[in-house]
Amino acid sequence: MKARFDGFEAKIRESFARQDIMRTLGAELVRVEAGAVEIVAPVLDEMRQQHGFAHAAVSFALGDSAAGYAALSLMEGPDEVLTVEMKINLLAPAQGARLHAKGHVVRPGRRLVVVGAEVWAETDGGAVQVALLQGTMIPVRPG
Amino acid sequence: MKARFDGFEAKIRESFARQDIMRTLGAELVRVEAGAVEIVAPVLDEMRQQHGFAHAAVSFALGDSAAGYAALSLMEGPDEVLTVEMKINLLAPAQGARLHAKGHVVRPGRRLVVVGAEVWAETDGGAVQVALLQGTMIPVRPG
Amino acid sequence: MKARFDGFEAKIRESFARQDIMRTLGAELVRVEAGAVEIVAPVLDEMRQQHGFAHAAVSFALGDSAAGYAALSLMEGPDEVLTVEMKINLLAPAQGARLHAKGHVVRPGRRLVVVGAEVWAETDGGAVQVALLQGTMIPVRPG
Amino acid sequence: MKARFDGFEAKIRESFARQDIMRTLGAELVRVEAGAVEIVAPVLDEMRQQHGFAHAAVSFALGDSAAGYAALSLMEGPDEVLTVEMKINLLAPAQGARLHAKGHVVRPGRRLVVVGAEVWAETDGGAVQVALLQGTMIPVRPG
Repeated sequence: MKARFDGFEAKIRESFARQDIMRTLGAELVRVEAGAVEIVAPVLDEMRQQHGFAHAAVSFALGDSAAGYAALSLMEGPDEVLTVEMKINLLAPAQGARLHAKGHVVRPGRRLVVVGAEVWAETDGGAVQVALLQGTMIPVRPG
Repeated sequence: MKARFDGFEAKIRESFARQDIMRTLGAELVRVEAGAVEIVAPVLDEMRQQHGFAHAAVSFALGDSAAGYAALSLMEGPDEVLTVEMKINLLAPAQGARLHAKGHVVRPGRRLVVVGAEVWAETDGGAVQVALLQGTMIPVRPG
Repeated sequence: MKARFDGFEAKIRESFARQDIMRTLGAELVRVEAGAVEIVAPVLDEMRQQHGFAHAAVSFALGDSAAGYAALSLMEGPDEVLTVEMKINLLAPAQGARLHAKGHVVRPGRRLVVVGAEVWAETDGGAVQVALLQGTMIPVRPG
Repeated sequence: MKARFDGFEAKIRESFARQDIMRTLGAELVRVEAGAVEIVAPVLDEMRQQHGFAHAAVSFALGDSAAGYAALSLMEGPDEVLTVEMKINLLAPAQGARLHAKGHVVRPGRRLVVVGAEVWAETDGGAVQVALLQGTMIPVRPG
């Protein structure tokens, strides 16, 4: 997808920096392109569920954010996006060194943007897909 | 729904205590009945998104856990549950003093359990529903 | 929920009558109130899947329509609604004499309406819930 | 994905032929491979919603079936599959000469199979994606 306006990367990086939860998760933006954003975060002890894996909410947080910023990358000016709804299918336990979320735009729109994301658990030896997300973002004008 | 076996509350409280993420969120089990579990957590600064509200992943974490434990409350003995998939619709910004998640079982089953949850943002003056979840849990035998 | 304007029942009945698929399914509106609409249809031979039950798409059609008309019941004047997204959990085989879909509004809104629906399979002896739906409707102005 | 056993195409074609709803929709299997199945159907007058487009339930029926048969293509012997849950995002009105559903397996498993599907509306001049589906299938042994 082609960027339809300049400056989207700066806008996304600034928004990301304002999200306390991304800092709490140790998350980093590793790719910011028009229609595709990727986020990586370590698997932190304090985010584990009862079996010792990262809780599904961590995969949700990273996948939802990567998808939301992918939507934002195609929007002009002062817009932000909010998640309307998100569906996550969990494919495998989130274990390993880090989680890598890859968000993309399925269908851009003026009123709504349909998005998807994959989340992969990576170790130095390889990667396993742990989640698949599909959802809807809505542009909002900051009040 | 009637409890089909004794001891489910102790099993759920023990499992909950093993979840590091619940401690990180400051979450507490406030109701544990057969087929219905409720969790309350404060809205923490370190879990905020860019507009200053709790990130959708916090509502997801609490709603998913309340729903999962509601499913576990109907299962015998050593079983645990994992989330197969979860859909969340976000209804309003998660602002206020605390979030209150109410999980319930829609349809128990031997192979799969269909669950739902609501998440409410509470202040001393009232409560607003911020999320609605619908998903599927699967029983697992710890290895 | 209180009706916020007059004439919603006539608007819904007229829209329903224009849906060829509802006629094909033998579907009837059996309840039209502000925020709650119910539809009943027989289990037709020509809509069966390979095990002889009604195909999941029939439960989807009825539940989605009941939910969409529940949303429309709260909208003014010339508006119509379209389904943005819908999630269906299938709970039991759709067998019996007829299917009864009950749609309701979870959260009305100017830009989007969150809805839910249940579908029950009824025989003369009783009823079994066969599906649970959760989704999002968007108002559209006919062009 | 590699076929793990012989005979899956015959099994799928036989199951498809037993679905009355596929005949009612005028649907045809146009591709049957291990992990990927495609179905095409005309846009029929009797399946229209109130704006004259194919009802969302038609896209659901075709996408769900393509995804389900993609799951079945990877299963041995006498197994069949049922849909546990399915989420559909509607991207554009389903208008044109025919609908083309493309189902695939995201993650095969012994207990559950995660699947996806796209539905495209085709005319002689081109194609527009009208729906995206993500869901879960469960193997069943016919009783």
